[in-house]
Amino acid sequence: MKIGIYGYGNLGRGVELGVRQNPDIELVGVFTRRDPATVKTLTGIPVYPAARVEDFAAEIDVLIICGGSASDLPEMTPALARSFNVIDSFDTHARIPEHFENVEKAAMLTGHTALISGGWDPGLFSLARLYMNAVLPDGKDYTFWGRGVSQGHSDAIRRIPGVADARQYTIPVPEALERVRKGENPELTTRQKHTRECWVVAEEGADKAEIERRIKEMPNYFADYDTTVNFITAEEMKRDHSELPHGGQVIRGGATGTDGKHRHVMEFSLKLDSNPEFTASVLLACARAVCRMYARGNYGCKTLFDIAPADLSPLSPEELRKRLL
Amino acid sequence: MKIGIYGYGNLGRGVELGVRQNPDIELVGVFTRRDPATVKTLTGIPVYPAARVEDFAAEIDVLIICGGSASDLPEMTPALARSFNVIDSFDTHARIPEHFENVEKAAMLTGHTALISGGWDPGLFSLARLYMNAVLPDGKDYTFWGRGVSQGHSDAIRRIPGVADARQYTIPVPEALERVRKGENPELTTRQKHTRECWVVAEEGADKAEIERRIKEMPNYFADYDTTVNFITAEEMKRDHSELPHGGQVIRGGATGTDGKHRHVMEFSLKLDSNPEFTASVLLACARAVCRMYARGNYGCKTLFDIAPADLSPLSPEELRKRLL
Repeated sequence: MKIGIYGYGNLGRGVELGVRQNPDIELVGVFTRRDPATVKTLTGIPVYPAARVEDFAAEIDVLIICGGSASDLPEMTPALARSFNVIDSFDTHARIPEHFENVEKAAMLTGHTALISGGWDPGLFSLARLYMNAVLPDGKDYTFWGRGVSQGHSDAIRRIPGVADARQYTIPVPEALERVRKGENPELTTRQKHTRECWVVAEEGADKAEIERRIKEMPNYFADYDTTVNFITAEEMKRDHSELPHGGQVIRGGATGTDGKHRHVMEFSLKLDSNPEFTASVLLACARAVCRMYARGNYGCKTLFDIAPADLSPLSPEELRKRLL
Repeated sequence: MKIGIYGYGNLGRGVELGVRQNPDIELVGVFTRRDPATVKTLTGIPVYPAARVEDFAAEIDVLIICGGSASDLPEMTPALARSFNVIDSFDTHARIPEHFENVEKAAMLTGHTALISGGWDPGLFSLARLYMNAVLPDGKDYTFWGRGVSQGHSDAIRRIPGVADARQYTIPVPEALERVRKGENPELTTRQKHTRECWVVAEEGADKAEIERRIKEMPNYFADYDTTVNFITAEEMKRDHSELPHGGQVIRGGATGTDGKHRHVMEFSLKLDSNPEFTASVLLACARAVCRMYARGNYGCKTLFDIAPADLSPLSPEELRKRLL
């Protein structure tokens, strides 16, 4: 199975490294909108200009599109699905139905298979929600994120005047987690579920009190949360906050039996040292499934909801039943 | 969607109660090998003799077979798959490949869809192992069971002379769980993973020391574990140990990145007040998928590995993408 990487940021590098852990996957090349001469890959994989990607249509079984959800993927995925089987990690939850329709149209037009919104949320967390809801119809589910770096929130802080650099950690409130894990199914406000922890490098002479006020009062991003702001030096930022850990949990509490007498709690959790590398690992498993569905003539836009789990694994159905069932 | 229940023990009763939580599922009747006049269902569903089940072939979309894995299911499931779409919870891991082949042959012969080994282990835990292995190829996974009642171990104790009643709880060793959750991927012996806690009602005049010795030295069941034995009265047994709670967790620790620099831990856990009712809930979601696969002409024997998750849910693909992705 031959794949290409379209877009070479943190996620693209994660895919590049992940290929080495999957003996059945081979990497043809990296495609970038930058000048290829300025891009050096981690493992020596060749770099080509994005504009030339169509020349590789016959060579690439699946193209993994590693662009941003805000402006890249809504354009890129439908456009590339006309010539390739594609995978993306589109994660703007509210716009998934629209993105799905666009990719479906493009993929069906030329007979390709596309998978959107691969990763862990959307992705593995969505699967957990689906399985849990199907199995326990009477219940309530919760998704907690963190402790982990939210890149969107970090960027929002960086746009404040006087901020040289920033990192924002999303953290579940331990008491909320504990109540949900007990199966209490509490009503929780935004503030009761997560706190936000900010690490900020201020520019010289910047008004730190004003920066802190502007962070804490920022609507949508911080105003509804208990937020703490810590000022550190650029050296401390580099030393203590250069990784991109993340994680979280999906938990559903529900009841069965006479009068809902018996309570059950299901939980799926992730603790990740590297958000982009783990997301890339999910996309690589998806690449395998996309190839198999394409080979069966199962075209169009898919999500992880449509993929029989066996299609994600390098093992044969017989081996899977014997070793993992 | 109309279902029948074949076999009316704890699991069959769980299915009966679970149907009320699934508005798209209707229960036609319960089939039993006992005299139907002696069986009273919890919700007033009619009871028919097992021998008459074939008369209902046109009325029942899926038959849920609620028999034991030791001797019932290896016979029942292939036999019934000739006339019905069927589901079972066959859980003898070592014999799954053989059972699969037998059911596959029977279902293909007459064009039916069968799902074997539904439930939580095998079942949801198997799915967790598959997803985790596909996503993190370089890692190690662990399955812990409990705290929960093992019916097989309870039965084994009851067969000892002088034992009037017994209940055995399987309990994960907290230190082992903790190390696995940290991603240490330790080598663990049987003894290091689980302990066994036994509650025994002795017959009058029975030699308790001898009973305890025979439990602790029983090969396969107890000899390889740290086992505690507590003697209680029949009243205490009834008061404190009449439920069938269970649960456990599947955990996989793995690494990605340059030199496996980044570690990740994935965990799926269940905490269940009633093992049979939860298992029944999984089987009901499977019934939905079996009906849909049958309608598409997708015949033969399946496991949860072969089922696209969306097929388990009462929601449409559009609703699923909008609400759960």
